[in-house]
Amino acid sequence: MSPAESREAFRGGLRVPTAGWAPGYAQANMIIVPREYAYDALLFGQRNPKPCPIIGVTDTGSPHTDLAPGADLRTDVGAYRVWRDGELVDEPDDVLEYWNDDLVTFLIGCSYTFETPMVAAGIEVRHISKGQNVSMYKTSRECAPAGRLSGPMVVSMRPIAADRVADAVRISGQFPSVHGAPVHIGAPEALGIEDLSKPDFGDPVEIREGEVPVFWACGVTPQAAIMRSKPPFAITHAPGYMFVTDVPDYTYAV
Amino acid sequence: MSPAESREAFRGGLRVPTAGWAPGYAQANMIIVPREYAYDALLFGQRNPKPCPIIGVTDTGSPHTDLAPGADLRTDVGAYRVWRDGELVDEPDDVLEYWNDDLVTFLIGCSYTFETPMVAAGIEVRHISKGQNVSMYKTSRECAPAGRLSGPMVVSMRPIAADRVADAVRISGQFPSVHGAPVHIGAPEALGIEDLSKPDFGDPVEIREGEVPVFWACGVTPQAAIMRSKPPFAITHAPGYMFVTDVPDYTYAV
Repeated sequence: MSPAESREAFRGGLRVPTAGWAPGYAQANMIIVPREYAYDALLFGQRNPKPCPIIGVTDTGSPHTDLAPGADLRTDVGAYRVWRDGELVDEPDDVLEYWNDDLVTFLIGCSYTFETPMVAAGIEVRHISKGQNVSMYKTSRECAPAGRLSGPMVVSMRPIAADRVADAVRISGQFPSVHGAPVHIGAPEALGIEDLSKPDFGDPVEIREGEVPVFWACGVTPQAAIMRSKPPFAITHAPGYMFVTDVPDYTYAV
Repeated sequence: MSPAESREAFRGGLRVPTAGWAPGYAQANMIIVPREYAYDALLFGQRNPKPCPIIGVTDTGSPHTDLAPGADLRTDVGAYRVWRDGELVDEPDDVLEYWNDDLVTFLIGCSYTFETPMVAAGIEVRHISKGQNVSMYKTSRECAPAGRLSGPMVVSMRPIAADRVADAVRISGQFPSVHGAPVHIGAPEALGIEDLSKPDFGDPVEIREGEVPVFWACGVTPQAAIMRSKPPFAITHAPGYMFVTDVPDYTYAV
């Protein structure tokens, strides 16, 4: 399926994790805030480029983005989350009823972008091969605060065979504007993760003998900042249900 | 000289271009605007990451930055420029008399960062070997506008021997957050540059037989945006007189 066909399916109500969809095209995390919070959100991204690499910012009130000219950000994501005062209050299929002309949308790079070249290099990405959502965890590592926004870094985890970990670092490192190289390899306890089989977001993914858990900074981090910082209103994608752009993955390669 | 010693010299009144100073440490372009303009400035950087890769943003009113904890941004640059309504009104040695608690400072990556590894690889960087300021030009290529800010892209130019151009691309491309790979190689007329011997900023640099002019996006671009967009007030560094940080160049390597 092309990116446009994928978005059409999500617009029509399909609700599935997007890993592996429209292969070769970048997917994006999303956070939408009132204009009055937009500077803090943009600054949070600037100060935390590993978890929050901002690849697109709409003009205030616009549901359109240069990253996918035919798309409507209010309807084209498979599952949205609506937040009030840091509490999740709704998970609708579209956000038409919540929209207003004062909202600014931030699109944030997604680690799925470097999964395609990792798979092409013969590295198994298990959540794709199993048709699951990636495992994501809140960590004990704090992001740099920005204005009223603060929170812990969220990471995604992929189990990688020990003899391919260096290749996974090298390949993902070629995509610095979409999370880039891992932030942590092995030793989950040093990130404050007690049980890898119980992710905070997404599905648990099997780790086999001879594999190492490799952690990449994750674009769900802004949602953890929303929970902590409690802005009056925000909209995000549901973790793993990304916005599919028209931008080829390799646009982001160094 | 170390970064701290360099800043001390500039704080004491020394006024020289900083190319080649404190080798191995990143230097930065600077633009300071009232808080009311800070969102537009930050968004301009996000939308134009090649010319305006923002590597630091101060808290509102603070003259201090994590990039050089002992520094004072009001005094430690060799030469400042003060702008009112898009007009250059002063070029002082410090900006203590212009400072107020409503100002936000943006530090923007500088192509000097990848000059050290280029020189280490045996590529002559002529403005360093000649002790000159780099040549900079306004181009006919427009930046993506952001709110009230718009303007042309400014580029720096280095003449590179034809058999080392690919090496210069490869080495600078390893530093995407400080301008990265060139935006244009050869054919200056296609950038709207009519006479390479007459740069808009900096010094003219000799181009020898067998060399190609190679153009990198330049952190003076915000100054061209100030001239075009005429914000009521802004402070910048003087082109080529950079802020010297404590951050090792290789921190920005991919």
